[in-house]
Amino acid sequence: MEFDGSGFSGWQAQPGLRTVQTELERAIKSLTGEELRVVGAGRTDAGVHALGQVVSFKTESRHEPEVFRRGLNALLGEDAAVLSAEEAPPDFDAQRSAVGKWYRYLIRESRNKVALERDRVWRLGYALELEAMRAGALHLIGEHDFSSFRSSTCDTKTSVRRMKRIEIFRNGQGRLVFEFWAGGFLKQMARTMVGTLVEVGRGKLRPEEIKSILEARDRTRAGPTAPAQGLYLARVDY
Amino acid sequence: MEFDGSGFSGWQAQPGLRTVQTELERAIKSLTGEELRVVGAGRTDAGVHALGQVVSFKTESRHEPEVFRRGLNALLGEDAAVLSAEEAPPDFDAQRSAVGKWYRYLIRESRNKVALERDRVWRLGYALELEAMRAGALHLIGEHDFSSFRSSTCDTKTSVRRMKRIEIFRNGQGRLVFEFWAGGFLKQMARTMVGTLVEVGRGKLRPEEIKSILEARDRTRAGPTAPAQGLYLARVDY
Repeated sequence: MEFDGSGFSGWQAQPGLRTVQTELERAIKSLTGEELRVVGAGRTDAGVHALGQVVSFKTESRHEPEVFRRGLNALLGEDAAVLSAEEAPPDFDAQRSAVGKWYRYLIRESRNKVALERDRVWRLGYALELEAMRAGALHLIGEHDFSSFRSSTCDTKTSVRRMKRIEIFRNGQGRLVFEFWAGGFLKQMARTMVGTLVEVGRGKLRPEEIKSILEARDRTRAGPTAPAQGLYLARVDY
Repeated sequence: MEFDGSGFSGWQAQPGLRTVQTELERAIKSLTGEELRVVGAGRTDAGVHALGQVVSFKTESRHEPEVFRRGLNALLGEDAAVLSAEEAPPDFDAQRSAVGKWYRYLIRESRNKVALERDRVWRLGYALELEAMRAGALHLIGEHDFSSFRSSTCDTKTSVRRMKRIEIFRNGQGRLVFEFWAGGFLKQMARTMVGTLVEVGRGKLRPEEIKSILEARDRTRAGPTAPAQGLYLARVDY
């Protein structure tokens, strides 16, 4: 699924709030009559976007996958789209079967107010040192306890994750892009990494301080959480 | 100015409607106390965006241009931005002094529903023949009477315009881009050219038919008007 996170209170169903999960389950009910629960690979926060969220559910319906794709697209609002649909093996679970995820974060360094991309990027207003951020990011690569880079409300059992790759570059359209490939992400982990690397990029932290922040396993040592609207769940691997 | 046209009933002031001109004049009144009229280089329709609209106005205020830039950005909504401000010669008029304009049009050929870019592109759902559209566009280059390519409600005195350059390409991010450079544009001219070239790109018209459509000076001969949300006023030259 692709969705624009601006109008959703995140992925996960919450009473009284418009979430992607709730909207999708409502659309499935309209299509098949079934009240079922869907499983999303990434539980994105309010305002976070998706280019490639993967969702699984068990249905009794005999509809072909293509009927689901078209039907759900018609039943969902304009800000959420089913890009493709297929039948999966019985044991497939979009969340538990995932072996890796790719998140992208977009920054506009421009001092100018941003109108067209206001819900799509973090506008900083100043320029960042690319090489310093790349040097800092190297300390995050590999298997680490990422306690310093997760939300204080994150309650997963283990905070160890494997960071496979981080790319930081300017894309030629005025945007600074962060890309993170990891086996999995803790709550707000990508946004906290961006917020901390931006502190490196503006000279408030030295690149090697990323290593001591990581080793401290203390959220208060890392930088601020970057705003939700710059973050995109880009891809999930199985 | 940059603005997101989605929330505006176009550029031009109209009673009871939210337009960019109205919002800007209201912001200027808050900043300087003056009730004045601004002149915009391009009178964009509802839903059309701007990356580089140019606006001129005469003020008695002693504020520096930078104070206008910051103040108007603070007073305008999130969907409109003043990118820069400068003092102009007394005879400068954003509309009459313009010698050329550059419009861009974005298409997504993808059959997929588009969530993140729903107000930013025209989603077609099928692929177009690039070379055929380029061959068709060649007939539009030069000085012509563009009566066939203007809205039936367009009431400018002359419908002769000079088309300097048309570029049609895929930008590597899944978008098909049309760029039009002309001395000036008639009402809905860019959108009618796009709508007609798309007919060529899907094989409904032959490239050489563009020539006879142009010569007919008859709006009913051209293709449909492409939707507003794909169009951007990119730059104005002086």
